[in-house]
Amino acid sequence: MRWPPPRRRYEPPSSITRFPIPLSWKEKDITIVVDAMGGDYAPGVVVQGAVDAIAESSGRVSVILVGRQQAIESELRKHAPGGGEANIAGTLRVVHADEIIEMHDAPNSALKSKKNSSIAVGLALHRDGKADAFASAGNTGAVLSASTLILGRIKGIGRPTIGALFPTAKHTPCLLLDAGANVDCRARHLYEFGLMGSAYVAAMFGTRHPAVGLLSIGEEETKGNEVTLEAFKMLKEGPLHFVGNVEGRDILRGGVDVVVCDGFVGNIVLKFGESIPSFLKAKFLRYASRGPREKLVALLARGGLRSVMQEMDYQEAGGVPLLGVNGVSIIGHGGSSARAIKNMIFLAEKTVVQDVNGKIQDSLHGSRNGEE
Amino acid sequence: MRWPPPRRRYEPPSSITRFPIPLSWKEKDITIVVDAMGGDYAPGVVVQGAVDAIAESSGRVSVILVGRQQAIESELRKHAPGGGEANIAGTLRVVHADEIIEMHDAPNSALKSKKNSSIAVGLALHRDGKADAFASAGNTGAVLSASTLILGRIKGIGRPTIGALFPTAKHTPCLLLDAGANVDCRARHLYEFGLMGSAYVAAMFGTRHPAVGLLSIGEEETKGNEVTLEAFKMLKEGPLHFVGNVEGRDILRGGVDVVVCDGFVGNIVLKFGESIPSFLKAKFLRYASRGPREKLVALLARGGLRSVMQEMDYQEAGGVPLLGVNGVSIIGHGGSSARAIKNMIFLAEKTVVQDVNGKIQDSLHGSRNGEE
Repeated sequence: MRWPPPRRRYEPPSSITRFPIPLSWKEKDITIVVDAMGGDYAPGVVVQGAVDAIAESSGRVSVILVGRQQAIESELRKHAPGGGEANIAGTLRVVHADEIIEMHDAPNSALKSKKNSSIAVGLALHRDGKADAFASAGNTGAVLSASTLILGRIKGIGRPTIGALFPTAKHTPCLLLDAGANVDCRARHLYEFGLMGSAYVAAMFGTRHPAVGLLSIGEEETKGNEVTLEAFKMLKEGPLHFVGNVEGRDILRGGVDVVVCDGFVGNIVLKFGESIPSFLKAKFLRYASRGPREKLVALLARGGLRSVMQEMDYQEAGGVPLLGVNGVSIIGHGGSSARAIKNMIFLAEKTVVQDVNGKIQDSLHGSRNGEE
Repeated sequence: MRWPPPRRRYEPPSSITRFPIPLSWKEKDITIVVDAMGGDYAPGVVVQGAVDAIAESSGRVSVILVGRQQAIESELRKHAPGGGEANIAGTLRVVHADEIIEMHDAPNSALKSKKNSSIAVGLALHRDGKADAFASAGNTGAVLSASTLILGRIKGIGRPTIGALFPTAKHTPCLLLDAGANVDCRARHLYEFGLMGSAYVAAMFGTRHPAVGLLSIGEEETKGNEVTLEAFKMLKEGPLHFVGNVEGRDILRGGVDVVVCDGFVGNIVLKFGESIPSFLKAKFLRYASRGPREKLVALLARGGLRSVMQEMDYQEAGGVPLLGVNGVSIIGHGGSSARAIKNMIFLAEKTVVQDVNGKIQDSLHGSRNGEE
């Protein structure tokens, strides 16, 4: 793993509006264009998260905030007043986009009717080389569709996919994909998810020969549904370190780096997993209410539980990678806090620095089944 | 809820072998035929669990253990020696069946080649009225197939289903079905799962008008895969209290009594859920290893964590009901301990007493879509 990132020259965009507080624009290593209107608490937490990311990265990361200029600037005055300006000097710009794709909008029709949405404008900036990556905590379906449409697909990939990282009982996380992008999949798509996931894990975590499993309902080759039975054969014949079928329990158990499934199953497992912390919190509260002794135990345990839960918290991961598009597009959680937005920006940065897409392409070329 | 059960006359079977320790056979309320050879630790834990169930129920429950007589009797001598005999007097019998369907056997071919398996013999005893229910911690697929074959289906049900109970953040559990019996389902089957699940929850937990949700990837009616989109319409038009699509997070959150999905998704979610306790244990151990302060916190928290985890433990639930067959067939977890076996027997008892099948039939007759 190359970390910190190697320096790379940034070409400042000429067409974008300058943040009106007089800042000198500095040439940065990595520029992330962030959808300022995306997420349940936008633009407030997005602006805060961007300011925090810049501060925490000591200016290693530049951010272009895309959205309603007035709203963004009003937030910027709140979040980076006085001394704050110095921290973001030359590293934060605003590009105006007057339309917003809401969380409840139907992705494809919204993309058609709202040509000037923050998502579309932001992705176009990335496509045109004004930024190295795009990140949004907005409407997942819209980000997925717009990314595929505006950035295009990597040659050889039929369906871009969204992955999700799960913590495991071991030291390495488990990348589950597809986590919701592709509901009805063919075996071919599952095979591609395996290729992309393996390349991602190798690039981002430095894992050599990631173990790739196919999510099914039994370890035997004969167990599964029609699609997984066919995908099993393809994965077995492919170039990956394929460990065969894995079951629901193998995700948190660890040891399998990449778990492949269709987006219907993946999304359900992802959301089920995300609900564990609040479930446990409710259970501990009930336990604490049993009596003073239990209350004391629960109080003492709080720190440990919080520490353990932190790993399961999507706010920490910041977002999920959209793999298979010609560019870097990171999708944050709709309920993202400022911390989640900050982490989403760092995730975008790392995805750029580690050249995930280059590694996906290498993997496709190395694949016996990699031709369309 | 009628609990404890009303008295019901038991007809002692004439053809079954008596347990050789001289016991006087008493007429009991409920007789459960238990597959003594089913489960990873059979027959030891099964015999122990049966003895414990009889002792704990104060003779309310009788058990017929089916399997290799010598092995069972040898275990009985271990588990119920001397004083133990008094506890099981007249409440435990052994029926010999010389074949065993192993956990790894392919269900259908094993049923054909092993006509005299403990599963087949046990189910035949139940079918012939020698017992009120059958329970096994053995090969799930074999129990499912044999139950459908030997007991037959309830008229109007296309596919018997296996449900799984999840604990929730609220006070009521969530019944997820199908949990693995039917991998590729049609909409019609999902609809039937809803009917059966609703009847089960109403009968077993006394829930009035159970809330039934369809597991999908978004709450909107338009979200889902081909099968769930069609099932949505059927459930919406049916007689159930259908609350629409639910997501992965709604299972542990509580509030939805019955969650319907195909067996592929359900089995993956079930096994994922089952892996949470050992995941958390591993995380707490790692937390404890950070230093003496953390170790102390983890030690103090242990009781609380264990108490919370207990609810998530499949050993507590004892097993999952197989719904839609003409009889009561309970499937225990392969890794069942003696405690799990005991609880499996009690679950079978309650399923009989609460007349779950009668309520499924009532529900089918009340259903506008209930005709085949």
